[in-house]
Amino acid sequence: MNPFTRIRAKSLRSLGENQLIDEIRGWLGDVNPPAPFGIGDDCAVFAPAKKQQVITVDPVIFGRHFDRRISPEQVGAKLLKRNLSDLAAMGAKPTVAVISLALDAQVSTAWLKAFYIGLAKTARTYSVKIVGGDIAQADQVLVATLTLVGVVSGKRLLFRDGAKIGDSIYVTGQLGGSLESHHVDFTPLLEEGAWLAAEKDVRSMMDVSDGLAKDLRSLTPRGAKPCVRLEHLPVSPAARRAARRSGKAPAHHALSDGEDYQLLFSLAASANRAAFERRWARKFKTRLTQIGLFVDADAKIDGAIDFAALSGYEHLR
Amino acid sequence: MNPFTRIRAKSLRSLGENQLIDEIRGWLGDVNPPAPFGIGDDCAVFAPAKKQQVITVDPVIFGRHFDRRISPEQVGAKLLKRNLSDLAAMGAKPTVAVISLALDAQVSTAWLKAFYIGLAKTARTYSVKIVGGDIAQADQVLVATLTLVGVVSGKRLLFRDGAKIGDSIYVTGQLGGSLESHHVDFTPLLEEGAWLAAEKDVRSMMDVSDGLAKDLRSLTPRGAKPCVRLEHLPVSPAARRAARRSGKAPAHHALSDGEDYQLLFSLAASANRAAFERRWARKFKTRLTQIGLFVDADAKIDGAIDFAALSGYEHLR
Repeated sequence: MNPFTRIRAKSLRSLGENQLIDEIRGWLGDVNPPAPFGIGDDCAVFAPAKKQQVITVDPVIFGRHFDRRISPEQVGAKLLKRNLSDLAAMGAKPTVAVISLALDAQVSTAWLKAFYIGLAKTARTYSVKIVGGDIAQADQVLVATLTLVGVVSGKRLLFRDGAKIGDSIYVTGQLGGSLESHHVDFTPLLEEGAWLAAEKDVRSMMDVSDGLAKDLRSLTPRGAKPCVRLEHLPVSPAARRAARRSGKAPAHHALSDGEDYQLLFSLAASANRAAFERRWARKFKTRLTQIGLFVDADAKIDGAIDFAALSGYEHLR
Repeated sequence: MNPFTRIRAKSLRSLGENQLIDEIRGWLGDVNPPAPFGIGDDCAVFAPAKKQQVITVDPVIFGRHFDRRISPEQVGAKLLKRNLSDLAAMGAKPTVAVISLALDAQVSTAWLKAFYIGLAKTARTYSVKIVGGDIAQADQVLVATLTLVGVVSGKRLLFRDGAKIGDSIYVTGQLGGSLESHHVDFTPLLEEGAWLAAEKDVRSMMDVSDGLAKDLRSLTPRGAKPCVRLEHLPVSPAARRAARRSGKAPAHHALSDGEDYQLLFSLAASANRAAFERRWARKFKTRLTQIGLFVDADAKIDGAIDFAALSGYEHLR
């Protein structure tokens, strides 16, 4: 759906700010608590927190993260799910979110309504309150920025830092070809993330958003390198389809496409891998793959992927 | 300063994302704690909070909130101060902030560096940690969105809701003509806001950001209207200068210009106004003016401003 319209009566220009805010309250429904706990005061008020908190921010931008082929409901859902995936990657659960819109007055009211409906539905699914935001006019653009706050789900958070040489590298789900549909229809793995943070042998975690090739670098401890063989990568059917079109190898897509929104984590070398994998399988249907392990940076290993020579998605180019 | 450059070597395009993030860490310095408490993990971690928390978000957009005549240091400072003013308006104090940039790859590195230096200096002044963010490319725009989290400063927060008929209406400072310089060189009134929240007779509060004419509506209780006489408005010298250029009355500028970032609040009718004003004057140099009071909506009062016929800044038009 085209987010823009030249018909004044169908655009935000015909509403004005106060009426638009009233409409947004209606679209969000019970996901937006009454002021001052929701939209309507200088700030939104939210509850004290007994445990450590987390905060993350991610936007969706027309022409960059979505286009006319993506429904506005999916755009709204994606905006929240991108941020939820960041919380999942630390073992946190969401509390409140605010959303800031920078948009052209020619954005269509119908598009924005459907966007908020999609956002609200996703917020309901994951128990997030959308408590406030801002609307500002900007020429010829549509940028929606969501900031999500959360709190530790269990006893601890998992960070990117913490893996040691010898630790196993695991990834959930399958990788690559996300542009086909996964980049909008993925599920943020909040329960999986919280469960992994409660497993004492899991030492570090992140989500795969820029592609394994780039993201795995952030999990790799100093003096180490990942030892991962191509044949161990969980290559998605979508990556294989993308490869038939691009002429590149399916593994290339699995390593570099990005927007996988899977969890990537390290398990201590001393852990009982088989018992760990059984516990996972009893709890989750989500696929789990040990793709390799961290080895000394100087180790010579035939057949391992040369991550130093690969790169994932670069945001500015 | 022009934020954009066509010289590749001077633009963000020449840096790439990872190098840019490293630069930003350097520009922020001690305002950005080490990961996971600052930039570098999936989320930023921040402390538990024993009291109620608040959250607000506001952007600055090139061509809308600033232009080439404003220095990048001032833009960075303004972005944070706009949000701090929202916290001041509730009697809260800041804790952490995240910043999301949607920008063209032709933004100049020198501009962005100065922007972050201005942001960091302001963050240091007001004890805010800049703990994370996001950078995304967007064609021909420069949008910086800051989300600020805070916590109750004293025992309670003040909301827009709470005034009663008969209550006095007060405003800090002077109003109007903000475009001359006040919109960048204002001071967010955090101490004043916290002090007012501790005064039991202060019943409601907000900041004046869209102009008194529009904002006072939000403080007005149901069934009431503000009774404010033109001659009681604290009209700024800048509003008088603006009036000489525009041919409008100085009071028009004081009522409608917006970006005053003053505190507007109500004091209970039963309060000892003289004693209250003396306590204020002992504590603060900031000017305080009782501009009127709330009266029954049906009351007929000669010489009062007709707020129903006025409007402040409309964001979408």
